[in-house]
Amino acid sequence: MDFSTLIGMLVGLSLVVGAIFIGGAVDVFINVPGMMIVIGGTLASICVAFPFEEVIQAMVAGFKAFSSRKVKVNEVVNIMVKVAEISRREGLIALENVQTENVVLRKSCQLIADNADPELIRATLRIEISAMKRRHKIAQDVYKRLAGLAPAFGMLGTLIGLVQMLSNLQEPASIGPAMAVAILTTFYGSLLATVLFIPIGAKLRARTLQEQLHLEIIFEGAKSILENNNPRLVYEKLSSFQAPKDRAGE
Amino acid sequence: MDFSTLIGMLVGLSLVVGAIFIGGAVDVFINVPGMMIVIGGTLASICVAFPFEEVIQAMVAGFKAFSSRKVKVNEVVNIMVKVAEISRREGLIALENVQTENVVLRKSCQLIADNADPELIRATLRIEISAMKRRHKIAQDVYKRLAGLAPAFGMLGTLIGLVQMLSNLQEPASIGPAMAVAILTTFYGSLLATVLFIPIGAKLRARTLQEQLHLEIIFEGAKSILENNNPRLVYEKLSSFQAPKDRAGE
Amino acid sequence: MDFSTLIGMLVGLSLVVGAIFIGGAVDVFINVPGMMIVIGGTLASICVAFPFEEVIQAMVAGFKAFSSRKVKVNEVVNIMVKVAEISRREGLIALENVQTENVVLRKSCQLIADNADPELIRATLRIEISAMKRRHKIAQDVYKRLAGLAPAFGMLGTLIGLVQMLSNLQEPASIGPAMAVAILTTFYGSLLATVLFIPIGAKLRARTLQEQLHLEIIFEGAKSILENNNPRLVYEKLSSFQAPKDRAGE
Amino acid sequence: MDFSTLIGMLVGLSLVVGAIFIGGAVDVFINVPGMMIVIGGTLASICVAFPFEEVIQAMVAGFKAFSSRKVKVNEVVNIMVKVAEISRREGLIALENVQTENVVLRKSCQLIADNADPELIRATLRIEISAMKRRHKIAQDVYKRLAGLAPAFGMLGTLIGLVQMLSNLQEPASIGPAMAVAILTTFYGSLLATVLFIPIGAKLRARTLQEQLHLEIIFEGAKSILENNNPRLVYEKLSSFQAPKDRAGE
Amino acid sequence: MDFSTLIGMLVGLSLVVGAIFIGGAVDVFINVPGMMIVIGGTLASICVAFPFEEVIQAMVAGFKAFSSRKVKVNEVVNIMVKVAEISRREGLIALENVQTENVVLRKSCQLIADNADPELIRATLRIEISAMKRRHKIAQDVYKRLAGLAPAFGMLGTLIGLVQMLSNLQEPASIGPAMAVAILTTFYGSLLATVLFIPIGAKLRARTLQEQLHLEIIFEGAKSILENNNPRLVYEKLSSFQAPKDRAGE
Repeated sequence: MDFSTLIGMLVGLSLVVGAIFIGGAVDVFINVPGMMIVIGGTLASICVAFPFEEVIQAMVAGFKAFSSRKVKVNEVVNIMVKVAEISRREGLIALENVQTENVVLRKSCQLIADNADPELIRATLRIEISAMKRRHKIAQDVYKRLAGLAPAFGMLGTLIGLVQMLSNLQEPASIGPAMAVAILTTFYGSLLATVLFIPIGAKLRARTLQEQLHLEIIFEGAKSILENNNPRLVYEKLSSFQAPKDRAGE
Repeated sequence: MDFSTLIGMLVGLSLVVGAIFIGGAVDVFINVPGMMIVIGGTLASICVAFPFEEVIQAMVAGFKAFSSRKVKVNEVVNIMVKVAEISRREGLIALENVQTENVVLRKSCQLIADNADPELIRATLRIEISAMKRRHKIAQDVYKRLAGLAPAFGMLGTLIGLVQMLSNLQEPASIGPAMAVAILTTFYGSLLATVLFIPIGAKLRARTLQEQLHLEIIFEGAKSILENNNPRLVYEKLSSFQAPKDRAGE
Repeated sequence: MDFSTLIGMLVGLSLVVGAIFIGGAVDVFINVPGMMIVIGGTLASICVAFPFEEVIQAMVAGFKAFSSRKVKVNEVVNIMVKVAEISRREGLIALENVQTENVVLRKSCQLIADNADPELIRATLRIEISAMKRRHKIAQDVYKRLAGLAPAFGMLGTLIGLVQMLSNLQEPASIGPAMAVAILTTFYGSLLATVLFIPIGAKLRARTLQEQLHLEIIFEGAKSILENNNPRLVYEKLSSFQAPKDRAGE
Repeated sequence: MDFSTLIGMLVGLSLVVGAIFIGGAVDVFINVPGMMIVIGGTLASICVAFPFEEVIQAMVAGFKAFSSRKVKVNEVVNIMVKVAEISRREGLIALENVQTENVVLRKSCQLIADNADPELIRATLRIEISAMKRRHKIAQDVYKRLAGLAPAFGMLGTLIGLVQMLSNLQEPASIGPAMAVAILTTFYGSLLATVLFIPIGAKLRARTLQEQLHLEIIFEGAKSILENNNPRLVYEKLSSFQAPKDRAGE
Repeated sequence: MDFSTLIGMLVGLSLVVGAIFIGGAVDVFINVPGMMIVIGGTLASICVAFPFEEVIQAMVAGFKAFSSRKVKVNEVVNIMVKVAEISRREGLIALENVQTENVVLRKSCQLIADNADPELIRATLRIEISAMKRRHKIAQDVYKRLAGLAPAFGMLGTLIGLVQMLSNLQEPASIGPAMAVAILTTFYGSLLATVLFIPIGAKLRARTLQEQLHLEIIFEGAKSILENNNPRLVYEKLSSFQAPKDRAGE
């Protein structure tokens, strides 16, 4: 469970809701047609902008941002050094038995154990990395687009409200409240983008960068094991991925 | 038929139209000169900004976004594995008879069957992929430009309306409606961009990314068949393009 | 003559002028000091932003966008196949006599006829392509910058007008017209950018992409003639640049 | 201690505070709920947008921007030439004793002294450089995102204030102060972004570019020492990194 | 002396000043606290955003944009052809005596005369080109950042003025002038960005592109002289950098 994501989201929302409650009249912030045009319009347009299954994938990825366990760079480096030790002690064939959740690491071990051509292994891992980036990129693109569509529908709602108010100015007393209602959709759109879509999209991007780094460590580690079956040299190379303070013997 | 695109577009539009009807006076949202300056100006400027045949191509591509059938990554991987099996069982020459809608796959099979130089095959497929990207890029660029021009003409219309209103303030009662009319063109421009041009441009982009992925699978598959005529290894490599959950035996 | 560019420009302008005439008082849209600050300021700043001869080149390129003849991809492919046939029938030396307007094609033919080193030919053509892109890029950059400067000077004019109006509010009757005048410069700036600079810059970009594609076809064709003097294989490779529906035998 | 950073920050802030004091009523610029929504919301959302440890790293990096000592290009070139002289005079093995704060330089010297494979040295240094860029990039991204979130929360606060004010227009005398309060959050957001987040993010970027240049000098120097153990040639190559006026003998 | 830069700057400024004088009251455009917050704040923040010596370098580069002599592509091509003729007639060693202001050309000639390894020459020139681009890039970045900071401080000033005005609406007569003063800082910020920072930044960029082109001509020329000491072939290759109309014999 990634608590900082959840707590950050809740604190952000409560500050906005708190500012509304301090002002007193909470009910003026609730306008169902306004919500419909902003939320409904954004969701409808995102289904035009992306194939439906990609929208669903992005939603799932968004939820996962709140729950998934973080893997550290140091752990990945240690695993690769351990793999190098196994392959040194027990031979490349022993890698077939390496147990891991990471699809790419498992595939690497199998290919090495199968004594596959090094060029094939390199090509396969490169495809794995770029395919992973592509899949993650789609989810980020969906949130980026959502963060653009929500304020755009908010502005459409405000323009509709302004035109309706301006073409009907007989009662001066109603101008203020009518304008408040018109502004509300801009508020909804900005709220969705600022508190929800932008931060989640950014978190997915940060996650992708981390996972990509892990795959590159696996890639460089597998190359080292193939070229030069020496755990010390594998660590020497992979420790360059670590921050200086995390390195052994420093 | 791609229903989610069509339904998304209709829902988006009905939410906007619904918000207008809820407000009552629908007729204040119809202003023919305003529509002419936004729609006409946008179309006229897009014909300056792009060669005429590219504008037409983009329109056609936009309509296709509502109708074209989706091909899945898994299908393309399976087809390439099947092609590898045919070439293994019946020899490379048998690829001449492979029936497929995909222009690039057909060309690949013919070149392999003709026993063409591997370097020529690689170069030809690379040109095919980049030419496809180029053609698709143009249609996306047209929609991106339309999404910029429509609000710009909307703002021009609003500025014209504001100048006319401000230079003629004698009748205070007419200020509101005159301003409502002035704002209308901004509304038209934003509506076209938000509901039409931005989502269609994004869908075309998503389609291009998918088609490009398919061509890369064909490219890697054809390379594998040429280098190493073994269906199992072809699958081993191409499965890296699939999402982990879609892979065989996982 | 490229009529769609000219017609698009005229239609765009007439729609804006028409909207002004419909509103009646045309004279309120004419403000000479406002025009001077927007047009003069934009032209003055573009001469600071770019070397003077590059500004002139961009102006010339902008006028050419209205007149230059379009060359189709298919024509270029056909020419290269014809060149391949000549070199096959009459020998590489015969390419010396190829007549063409295209500077790069003529240079390619001469270098091939001179029996130059293939590496030199490749390097020379690569320099030609990148030098062409660089020259075209400058003209596009000038229009992009103009499209940014015009609204910026428009806003400067509006800010000056607003400050003058606000610091002198004694006559309420003059507020409206004074504000109308202030807004006018924003209108001029947006008009120049939306109707003139943005579309012409975009057209120059579209032209560059086309010309670049032609040079790449010439480049690949020349490489094919050098490596493998066979018109059928040259066509096989270059047809990959064409849209599927334009290819022979499909 | 980097005084220009600290002084710049203090001068920028005092000019803003001074402008507030000149206007007299300082207390109207203090609004605790407004500060909470802008500062709290921005901090909460940044914790959603980035893993918590990356936010902390960015904060630390931001403070370091005020204190860290600047290393000049010329010093790094001189160090590498000195390293080349040592390795020439005393043999590659002597590099093991080179004392330096720079992690990458120390690693280079050890690898050279260990007589490691040149390809391994190159690969290791390339990983060091890209890992350093990645770590620095994250801190810059955090400040860029903060510079976007602060004004966005400012605008949310203003929209809330406007809706509250407009839906309650009974007392005309309260409109002005209510609007002043509403605008305050926009002011807070812009102030944080303009005076704090944008300049610090930019300084981190400038620092990264400098450090990256140093690593490239070390990389090229190490390569030169390996290929051709001649201090004069090492200087000849590395002096190309210096500005012309800083070079020896010019 | 580059007159078009100076004249463009003066004309741009006089048009703005002229528009202010036409409106009469010039003194309302002068507000010392407003100027201090915009100019002082921008300068203070740029010293936070960049190391101090880089800010100074950018200022110097900005002044040079008004004075430096322009070198034409054709001159550089001619110089390289002349160098090729010297090296052909008198041997590579004669290049030691080539007199030139251009640091990179001088270094190339010396390295060729020293009979240095071609790979070293190539690597050294590549470092020279990328180091030159890096130094120029910094000055452009400083102006780009200035062009963003000036309007940002302008807006901060306006927000301060608006809050002060709105919280003190007792005297309706003072609203106009107070608002005029508030808007002034936005005007100052936009003026600095539009008339000064953006065009100078753009000119520096245009200069960099030209100088980079010159270095690439020197680079390709030096490579040609090394590989194939023939002035005619050197010209054949380098003429590809020229615009078609500037080439000999066309």
